[in-house]
Amino acid sequence: MSGDTLQIFSEFLGTMMLILLGNGVVAAVCLKKSKAEGAGWVVITLGWGAAVTMAVYMSSFMGPAHLNPAVTVGMAVAGNFSWNLVVPFIIAQVVGGIVGGMLVYITYLPHYDATEDQATILGTFATGPAIRKPISNMITELIGTFVLVFTLLAFSKYTFADGMNPLIVGVLILSLGLSLGGPTGYAINPARDLGPRIAHQLLPIKNKGESDWGYSWVPIVGPFLGGILAALVWGLIA
Amino acid sequence: MSGDTLQIFSEFLGTMMLILLGNGVVAAVCLKKSKAEGAGWVVITLGWGAAVTMAVYMSSFMGPAHLNPAVTVGMAVAGNFSWNLVVPFIIAQVVGGIVGGMLVYITYLPHYDATEDQATILGTFATGPAIRKPISNMITELIGTFVLVFTLLAFSKYTFADGMNPLIVGVLILSLGLSLGGPTGYAINPARDLGPRIAHQLLPIKNKGESDWGYSWVPIVGPFLGGILAALVWGLIA
Amino acid sequence: MSGDTLQIFSEFLGTMMLILLGNGVVAAVCLKKSKAEGAGWVVITLGWGAAVTMAVYMSSFMGPAHLNPAVTVGMAVAGNFSWNLVVPFIIAQVVGGIVGGMLVYITYLPHYDATEDQATILGTFATGPAIRKPISNMITELIGTFVLVFTLLAFSKYTFADGMNPLIVGVLILSLGLSLGGPTGYAINPARDLGPRIAHQLLPIKNKGESDWGYSWVPIVGPFLGGILAALVWGLIA
Amino acid sequence: MSGDTLQIFSEFLGTMMLILLGNGVVAAVCLKKSKAEGAGWVVITLGWGAAVTMAVYMSSFMGPAHLNPAVTVGMAVAGNFSWNLVVPFIIAQVVGGIVGGMLVYITYLPHYDATEDQATILGTFATGPAIRKPISNMITELIGTFVLVFTLLAFSKYTFADGMNPLIVGVLILSLGLSLGGPTGYAINPARDLGPRIAHQLLPIKNKGESDWGYSWVPIVGPFLGGILAALVWGLIA
Repeated sequence: MSGDTLQIFSEFLGTMMLILLGNGVVAAVCLKKSKAEGAGWVVITLGWGAAVTMAVYMSSFMGPAHLNPAVTVGMAVAGNFSWNLVVPFIIAQVVGGIVGGMLVYITYLPHYDATEDQATILGTFATGPAIRKPISNMITELIGTFVLVFTLLAFSKYTFADGMNPLIVGVLILSLGLSLGGPTGYAINPARDLGPRIAHQLLPIKNKGESDWGYSWVPIVGPFLGGILAALVWGLIA
Repeated sequence: MSGDTLQIFSEFLGTMMLILLGNGVVAAVCLKKSKAEGAGWVVITLGWGAAVTMAVYMSSFMGPAHLNPAVTVGMAVAGNFSWNLVVPFIIAQVVGGIVGGMLVYITYLPHYDATEDQATILGTFATGPAIRKPISNMITELIGTFVLVFTLLAFSKYTFADGMNPLIVGVLILSLGLSLGGPTGYAINPARDLGPRIAHQLLPIKNKGESDWGYSWVPIVGPFLGGILAALVWGLIA
Repeated sequence: MSGDTLQIFSEFLGTMMLILLGNGVVAAVCLKKSKAEGAGWVVITLGWGAAVTMAVYMSSFMGPAHLNPAVTVGMAVAGNFSWNLVVPFIIAQVVGGIVGGMLVYITYLPHYDATEDQATILGTFATGPAIRKPISNMITELIGTFVLVFTLLAFSKYTFADGMNPLIVGVLILSLGLSLGGPTGYAINPARDLGPRIAHQLLPIKNKGESDWGYSWVPIVGPFLGGILAALVWGLIA
Repeated sequence: MSGDTLQIFSEFLGTMMLILLGNGVVAAVCLKKSKAEGAGWVVITLGWGAAVTMAVYMSSFMGPAHLNPAVTVGMAVAGNFSWNLVVPFIIAQVVGGIVGGMLVYITYLPHYDATEDQATILGTFATGPAIRKPISNMITELIGTFVLVFTLLAFSKYTFADGMNPLIVGVLILSLGLSLGGPTGYAINPARDLGPRIAHQLLPIKNKGESDWGYSWVPIVGPFLGGILAALVWGLIA
């Protein structure tokens, strides 16, 4: 593959892995009869942190491993990434999210069949608010993604010991989940939410309900605004 | 910005991040209807550990990343930091703590509105004792901060692999929280307590109670004494 | 010992350690009156992650530290390992698994005597499905092992800071357990399941039931297929 | 201080820190009204792991940081440590354990006063068996300490990235606690048990019961035998 194609592929592969492992831990905790059923927030946040670490390892030997449209746009605004690749990257990320969501469905198939609550099932694909207040939810996503992109930009000021960077990025995601994830389940990534939501729409899940498209703009708009704002503020101090 | 101004700014920014992420995890666990409600001590201590790690990354490319008046004073006593910058650092740290506390309020706004217990709300800003015995509480804070500053001084004896120092500092905070945090909630940092307490006083929170200023000296005096004592004892052995 | 013999020994020793520590945490959580009884999925997954890290340290100064027949076969398919050593490695791994399972029995002897539930006892040796659907369970094991071997192959693209590789491998196992372990308890390793299942068959356990040989092909076939598939797909992109 | 005196002092200081932080987390989880009360096994094992990491940082810039008589004797048997220093090291470790136990008492004083159960109070000083079967308990301690010393000897085969060794040792302790700690609470260190047990005997604790000296030989003999055995077996393969 040529350089650009390889990078686009790396975004697809990394985001697919991200959603397989990230949504996988939500399925593990929420679906009926799973060995991890009810294991709680510490398992979900550790699982997402480790998922991002592994997804970055899976991707960063081929490309920049954004795995997140808000990061891609933020890096372009900050001047660290070519605008030409922004649209292909976002498409690759969303497609990776769709495939990742489908792989979780296959991995947990008997447990999807055993789960009757529609909101629980949707929750293993897309995020939803703990208290539905769209503007407030959007601001929470904006703040979370601001911290994500701003911290990733700060990381660019450091040299990390060989191969340790993905681990530190995982600790960042762990931190964001633990600290800012309570109101909206920390999408902080439009592809992480939109991709699996499309998978939910498409898959023949037994007790499937609506895919809650009315909320779907929140984890898209909030993260994009947060990522862009982080890049702009970063430009003032860096 | 000049060197000194940049360092002062880095203390503001780092402490703001510290409180946003650190108090954020307390809000996540304690406020009503949060997805992390009731997730417990392991989530709080992991969250604070990761918060410190991220706050140090956000600050240490611009300055020494004390993020804590007791550390600033301790380092000055130990001869590792200029007394000229002590007061501006402390001001920057407290202001960072105020802004950080306000950002947590914005992030968790619907959950603050849904929470009725005044002590719970205050607990997402300032620390409070599990058993109110001010002298004993002060000694607990003194011991915790002694270990914090003494260990930070011991770290100065090591070279760490590139970029790994903030992670190790986070493990130190995790350790202090797990082991010495039970009685007082481990302020071990005057700005971590005073800053958000001022935010609590100022913010128009729905079910707000008193800001408990009667206790506020404990997480100021204990940490300062502990930090100074650590620096003095360190001087005897190093 | 000659080079090959040393490597085979290192697989025995590492897999024994892996099962002692890995099955040890299952015993800790599941057996009656253990201090960790009921400590849940976070303890089990952290315990297995740390177990793999320590087992790799115990093995990798003498050999490649596969500790898993699916990894051995996958590496041979990928061209990273000599086919001549595949069978001796697998034998060493299974024997290590048998001895490791016996050591867990000795370590937790009073708790095995205090536990009456036969399925619980078997669960401290071999894996079992949360919902028994063999084909689906096999696919879950296949996917988990695919991710394991594919990620290990991706790791070969990185240089890691000195001595840090086993820690990263442990985080990978933590991630797999948290995210993909819910349906089948993530054997993802034929020796991890077969070895201790043989130990269960052989040991004079007080309340022993059947060793559930009817399920035993699942955590053998699924991992081998997943490991081989990962190596083949890796060949297409690497 | 001269070289030997400094090393002996470093064992005192490190073991004191080890017990302050290690027993501190037990006090946090077990004593009444602590903010961490009932936080469970994951908090205790993470707390001990982090405690060892921090204790090693506090000690290893001055000496070898054994912090454990079974490690000291094992290293001497393995030929890695001078027999001349064994007795002074053990004395320093036990005295460190006594002082550490007393510091936990001071840190948690109001909570000791609020706790009535004598076994709970003793459990924040010394270890005790989940099921009292002294020979079996001794074997469990022997196996745990064997793995500890054997793995530490294996670590000597690796170079670790600068400053990362204490972190890896902490992961080892986390692993031992999670996997082998269920039956006896993993003393795996005679000074960790004897030192604080002496402190329990000496301190004027409100609801103090017996110091259970009848069990005290188990966490001394088991660890010594395990450490020596590990050194002897290591000699056969290294």
